Amino acid sequence: MSKEIPYKIYLEESEMPKQWYNVRADIKTKPAPLLNPATREPMKLEELEQVFCTELAKQELDDVTPYFDIPEEILNFYKMYRPSPLVRAYCLEKKLDTPAKIYYKFEGNNTSGSHKLNSAIAQAYYAKKQGLKGVTTETGAGQWGTALSMACSYFDLDCKVYMVKCSYEQKPFRREVMRTYGASVTPSPSEETEVGKKILSEHPGTTGSLGCAISEAVEVATKTEGYRYVLGSVLSQVLLHQTVIGLETKIALDKYGIVPDMIIGCAGGGSNLGGLISPFMGEKIRGEKDYQIIAVEPASCPSLTRGKYAYDFCDTGKVCPLAKMYTLGSGFIPSANHAGGLRYHGMSSILSQLYDDGLMEARSVIQTDVFEAAEKFARVEGILPAPESSHAIKVAIDEALKCKETGEEKTIVFGLTGTGYFDMYAYESFHDGTMTDYVPTDEDLKPGFESLP
Amino acid sequence: MSKEIPYKIYLEESEMPKQWYNVRADIKTKPAPLLNPATREPMKLEELEQVFCTELAKQELDDVTPYFDIPEEILNFYKMYRPSPLVRAYCLEKKLDTPAKIYYKFEGNNTSGSHKLNSAIAQAYYAKKQGLKGVTTETGAGQWGTALSMACSYFDLDCKVYMVKCSYEQKPFRREVMRTYGASVTPSPSEETEVGKKILSEHPGTTGSLGCAISEAVEVATKTEGYRYVLGSVLSQVLLHQTVIGLETKIALDKYGIVPDMIIGCAGGGSNLGGLISPFMGEKIRGEKDYQIIAVEPASCPSLTRGKYAYDFCDTGKVCPLAKMYTLGSGFIPSANHAGGLRYHGMSSILSQLYDDGLMEARSVIQTDVFEAAEKFARVEGILPAPESSHAIKVAIDEALKCKETGEEKTIVFGLTGTGYFDMYAYESFHDGTMTDYVPTDEDLKPGFESLP
Repeated sequence: MSKEIPYKIYLEESEMPKQWYNVRADIKTKPAPLLNPATREPMKLEELEQVFCTELAKQELDDVTPYFDIPEEILNFYKMYRPSPLVRAYCLEKKLDTPAKIYYKFEGNNTSGSHKLNSAIAQAYYAKKQGLKGVTTETGAGQWGTALSMACSYFDLDCKVYMVKCSYEQKPFRREVMRTYGASVTPSPSEETEVGKKILSEHPGTTGSLGCAISEAVEVATKTEGYRYVLGSVLSQVLLHQTVIGLETKIALDKYGIVPDMIIGCAGGGSNLGGLISPFMGEKIRGEKDYQIIAVEPASCPSLTRGKYAYDFCDTGKVCPLAKMYTLGSGFIPSANHAGGLRYHGMSSILSQLYDDGLMEARSVIQTDVFEAAEKFARVEGILPAPESSHAIKVAIDEALKCKETGEEKTIVFGLTGTGYFDMYAYESFHDGTMTDYVPTDEDLKPGFESLP
Repeated sequence: MSKEIPYKIYLEESEMPKQWYNVRADIKTKPAPLLNPATREPMKLEELEQVFCTELAKQELDDVTPYFDIPEEILNFYKMYRPSPLVRAYCLEKKLDTPAKIYYKFEGNNTSGSHKLNSAIAQAYYAKKQGLKGVTTETGAGQWGTALSMACSYFDLDCKVYMVKCSYEQKPFRREVMRTYGASVTPSPSEETEVGKKILSEHPGTTGSLGCAISEAVEVATKTEGYRYVLGSVLSQVLLHQTVIGLETKIALDKYGIVPDMIIGCAGGGSNLGGLISPFMGEKIRGEKDYQIIAVEPASCPSLTRGKYAYDFCDTGKVCPLAKMYTLGSGFIPSANHAGGLRYHGMSSILSQLYDDGLMEARSVIQTDVFEAAEKFARVEGILPAPESSHAIKVAIDEALKCKETGEEKTIVFGLTGTGYFDMYAYESFHDGTMTDYVPTDEDLKPGFESLP
């Protein structure tokens, strides 16, 4: 095929995917099941649905059904901000003077500013359908909390967000966006929950962590009539919803006869990366195609590149199920100089298994390099990327520059998960030269590993 | 035609307009020319090109050529973020339970967050083509400065922004975005210019105004070798570039056989409104179609609804040409409680003439009503609107609710010029109930009118 490739490939509404793809159905070594933290037995539906909406709990447990229909209400919501564009980075290619062809799937063109909305609207839908009053959740950098607030506002559900205290204080505007959508936002740890009080008494003055905020949100969900807990990453149900990213990407590429050599995504809990790569990984597992797949994580929170593959607690309060994952230990606290998200101690059990099976690679990058790449990208491609997304940009640029050396015309696809409008403090410290890097020593990682069960 | 209308109508790249439309060519009473502030004679090209790039000065003076080719470099840049979607507000219609059909042209899906980029890239292009080193400008709320920074970064031009001091201090993140794109940002009035020093000595502690910042930017442009001044609104050249909004809107509507009854836009200097309505106004002037066209302005800065139609200075320092416009006087300073943009003392001379000719209406709205409409819109349509854009939302909702009463199925199109990510202070004051309204008394407007020449 030799159709001219536009700057932005948009699908028609009629071309949008109508099903999510469950890559677990194709994975040969199934990801290990969640375990009950008390009994260490695999979680059963009736246990999971105490915490999660029933439909979502079913999705979480299902590793055999390859496709799930996307309910019509969700499809209609998707139509408000999807399909997202697959962009040919002509200007970046020119700037880098590379023979590589670079594409990025841009998920930032919605008010939540990131891909998180894809799963938020699904989870809110199932909560509404179950007749719930509301949901609880945690948020770190704020992308997930924002997305969930929007989704709950759409379905007229109450939304209680526990926001990691340091983010709550550093990002008052994120909080205001959530309030605009009617959510209540509480800095975590708080005095509102037993687990919050316990953490505060043990660590007075703590600025919180995702692990703490999860514990608080779960406690409130399980103690409040008509509420369930929802999570923005890590879980298999979340990756399932996020496959809309990869499915759209694949349809757009197929439409123009483009076959990528390499797919790159940033990875914190794994929701974006998992969603982007799933359909491609399916082909790879089934032996139909081969792709180089690269997860990029911060050097300061290196769960894949330096973590252990083990069962671990998902939260600091140890009230959640155990998951088998690449983890730095639930006691791991990211360094204070770490800007942006990608700060969770573990990685999606699906991605952990794929990584362990050698089906994907992982790289870690330092944050000043990430912001340098972000600024370079912004100046030629226009979009101001989120720090998280910029991890993928950094490696995409590295790979494109390798192509320049070797003369290879590789096709690179990366996930541009969101925008950085609420991350200007971090950009400011980069501009002012006060941003620092941190690569933990083995000694630094010890306390986290000691918290492993 | 009865094609099903999608949530978002995107044009193909091949359908994008390749020319801008100069509505002045069709206007029967031509807008009055700019006057030299010293001689009070119409500005000649050789005078204008001391301040503006030569091609832009030519565009400014040309009121007979109906179409200008969009240069290929600009078309290519447009392809990075355009076409912008024309969105059918299905969810808002449902929420309002109105028989009206509501569409909005959304210009916020680019990093500058607003329509301003459409003219910024054009102006930067002509500056580069002329071999200039850089440009100077002013910015208030920051949308224009951000857009120009992006455009200059793309063409590798230096960009000096004079930012109204109160915005500079209240919106540090806007400043950081501009720095990300390599611009220098100076709070205005500053000690860097003669006019800045003069204003500071006469009004110590002033928090600045657009009029002051324009004076400073013009002074620097005219005193610095290889620089020119560029402006983000008011001028006819800016409206010309912004017609890409209206042209795309019209192509999208025509594609689905939709004929609007009513077109609504917010109006500060008039760049968005003028750009949106131009092609429709052309048809109206030529007697081919009839549309109700409504300009919406803040009650606290009511140039159309309460201003005088007169020649006035465009800037506080009185160094710029005089323009005939609806104006509150160059000495008018918006109330301190006014959030967001739309704070310029005058209105585009094109729109002023059209308004004077009775070809469009104007309404003023108070800001708590605007934020209430903004929040309502955000909760159902997802997008977090800029305060400026929300003026149009307010009147669109009012009109849709009138249709509910009368049962009329009117088709309403409004301009959603941008996003409110950098306006969360204002949203916060709205949520906290501390936001106040201000409608100037006739007495309050007196000092402004006394500054008229």
